[in-house]
Amino acid sequence: MVFQLNPQNVIDNLKELQALTGDANGSQRLAWTETWSKACDWLRYKLAELPLRVEVDPAGNTWATLQGDSPQALVLGSHLDSVANGGWLDGCLGVLSGLEILRRFSLKGTPAVTVRLVSWADEEGTQFGPSLFGSSAASGNFDPKHFRKLLDKNSIRMDETVAQYGVDLDHAKEAGKQLKNAAAYLELHIEQGPVLESLNKPLAAVLGALGVERHAVNFTGQAAHAGSTPMAMRRDALAAAAKLELEIREIANRYGGVCTIGSVITRPGIDTAVVGQCDCLLDQRNLDASALAAMYQQAKEASQRFAVEERVEVDWELIYRIEPVFFNRQLIDLCDEAILETCGVSQRLPSGPLHDAVEMSRAGIPTAMMFVQSLNGLSHTKEEDTLPEHLLLAVQAFDRLAEKTANWILQIK
Amino acid sequence: MVFQLNPQNVIDNLKELQALTGDANGSQRLAWTETWSKACDWLRYKLAELPLRVEVDPAGNTWATLQGDSPQALVLGSHLDSVANGGWLDGCLGVLSGLEILRRFSLKGTPAVTVRLVSWADEEGTQFGPSLFGSSAASGNFDPKHFRKLLDKNSIRMDETVAQYGVDLDHAKEAGKQLKNAAAYLELHIEQGPVLESLNKPLAAVLGALGVERHAVNFTGQAAHAGSTPMAMRRDALAAAAKLELEIREIANRYGGVCTIGSVITRPGIDTAVVGQCDCLLDQRNLDASALAAMYQQAKEASQRFAVEERVEVDWELIYRIEPVFFNRQLIDLCDEAILETCGVSQRLPSGPLHDAVEMSRAGIPTAMMFVQSLNGLSHTKEEDTLPEHLLLAVQAFDRLAEKTANWILQIK
Repeated sequence: MVFQLNPQNVIDNLKELQALTGDANGSQRLAWTETWSKACDWLRYKLAELPLRVEVDPAGNTWATLQGDSPQALVLGSHLDSVANGGWLDGCLGVLSGLEILRRFSLKGTPAVTVRLVSWADEEGTQFGPSLFGSSAASGNFDPKHFRKLLDKNSIRMDETVAQYGVDLDHAKEAGKQLKNAAAYLELHIEQGPVLESLNKPLAAVLGALGVERHAVNFTGQAAHAGSTPMAMRRDALAAAAKLELEIREIANRYGGVCTIGSVITRPGIDTAVVGQCDCLLDQRNLDASALAAMYQQAKEASQRFAVEERVEVDWELIYRIEPVFFNRQLIDLCDEAILETCGVSQRLPSGPLHDAVEMSRAGIPTAMMFVQSLNGLSHTKEEDTLPEHLLLAVQAFDRLAEKTANWILQIK
Repeated sequence: MVFQLNPQNVIDNLKELQALTGDANGSQRLAWTETWSKACDWLRYKLAELPLRVEVDPAGNTWATLQGDSPQALVLGSHLDSVANGGWLDGCLGVLSGLEILRRFSLKGTPAVTVRLVSWADEEGTQFGPSLFGSSAASGNFDPKHFRKLLDKNSIRMDETVAQYGVDLDHAKEAGKQLKNAAAYLELHIEQGPVLESLNKPLAAVLGALGVERHAVNFTGQAAHAGSTPMAMRRDALAAAAKLELEIREIANRYGGVCTIGSVITRPGIDTAVVGQCDCLLDQRNLDASALAAMYQQAKEASQRFAVEERVEVDWELIYRIEPVFFNRQLIDLCDEAILETCGVSQRLPSGPLHDAVEMSRAGIPTAMMFVQSLNGLSHTKEEDTLPEHLLLAVQAFDRLAEKTANWILQIK
């Protein structure tokens, strides 16, 4: 029995970690805090029971290595850090599944390929803003100058904060040396969305991460008295924004992406005045770069057309832009196979949120991700949860994927 | 010459008052302040030059009476109080035109009807909220209990504030005695809207005041991740609000009224989340009570239809409701005549904003109002202005209307 995978170990460890680092409001493992450090120490304590080499790289990522016959490495990874009042699964599920799979590999003697686990530092970016700190340092998609200027909301400097945990921003990119022999990267994560639950499926093979075009779209009309200004004489900034809100849904459906206006601010914003200024935040996402570009272009053109119709002005300001990432097609197929063999049904899904796996894919490492169903699509809250039977299936399927990927590495060598 | 109307006197007096009670940011004659009190004293000083009886009623309104052969009174009125950083014409134009017309009447000896001027107290409601204090006290549309509880933003009590200016809320309604012999009420005011300027006409006869239905319309959907929630699975509260914003324009045009969503608040209101809660302020106005009721009903039904379409909830909460007021049709005709005889062109317009004239009409006094063009539709700001030639025409036409109305009073007696 001990030579087999025991998925229940993962659930037990998740609960143990939550008891150690959570409170009544949820998980409190914010990166670069004592609680996060305690979680990292706890992980090292668990890893110490296995025949592994454990090290912390210059970006604060924790690596555990089970040396195989080949130096070519299968890397399993995710993160222990959480948002404030976060859930018990986001990130930890991947790390602790990796721990169990390392245990399973180690009990069978020296594996054919090297198997590694990485616990990335500061995936969430909760305190200073930018996410994927540790994995972007390793991938090289990292500018120390950008991080050095960052302050948190209490004006605490990021460089001084990470230094307390042994990280020097100028040397963080040296974490990239860890990827030297990385032949594949796998990550298990909760979906953090409602799709699998709606389809009544436990697991999905992730196709990649949606690219993002995020813009401030600001309409400027003319504030005017709501009682004395006839409808035909108005330059109502809200009317143009309303048209855009409805149009972006057509655009999203046309290209199989998502478009969201998440914030609208109206000025003067009183009951007796036509809206003179309406500022919107527009977020557009697609897995296909050319489709994303078309979505952006069409939204921009539509906003200009609505501005003309409503006799208002519109301007666009870039907030955030990231290219889509498509994971390795062969590993996606293996992920799908592993899920089908475990559950009898599978699903392919893009990821809306970013994950450390995206940085590994950007670094040129063949990458795949597996999602397990989230209840009510909730995450980043203490209500985040997944059915226990789905967690057990997830660990089994992810282990199967690890085994398949180890064999795939041997074949492509 | 001295026996004639001199419209330039009105402009000179407006400038004198502005110099006395304004600053670089505009007019500062907020009711129940030293500056407003100074403006009232200045008016009494001007009235003292004429053969008038001057008194202040229990609501703080100033009355000047030129006794005629008949006790039946023609009342001219408006207000001296302004908003903070207000314009130089709003209210004052009516009071100082009334002063000039009283002067003109007084120079011709005892008039056939009594002619009175009233300067209403606290038309704007700047400090405590409710507008039309003095005129509603006189009309009887006034509940002292409502005012007694009012506090300003610094928690200063209204009852204590007005007491410093000799007003006891429990006796303010005794101002109604002043209306005993009022046979007609006339008010000249700036338009505070863009219609006359767009029509290139100096003056309008006001039909009445639009009724108002003002509601909070709150849509409740489900906040969800902008990246991981497919379009078809969203319950986007903003989408329902956007449909309502576009629909109210159709409703307004169908009934010849105006509809405005002046404020939209989105929650959580961040770039990465579908809007879960969208709270709108909807203001609807019409001169016809049944049309206003239909507008309200159709907007409500539309919001419920959109809520079903978007799978969100909607609830309505009444903020403010006032019935439309239609002025006296014979006096509207006289006003139109006076304008045509003065300018060669006239116009009939409803008033969006409320005015003291509305309270006089509610009190059963035959009432009419005249509007003079506002530049750029601006009011309640130091940029409020009207062409000097239009001000001169306004005083001439309003004097003509006063003369016609005095004769009308004699005929209907």
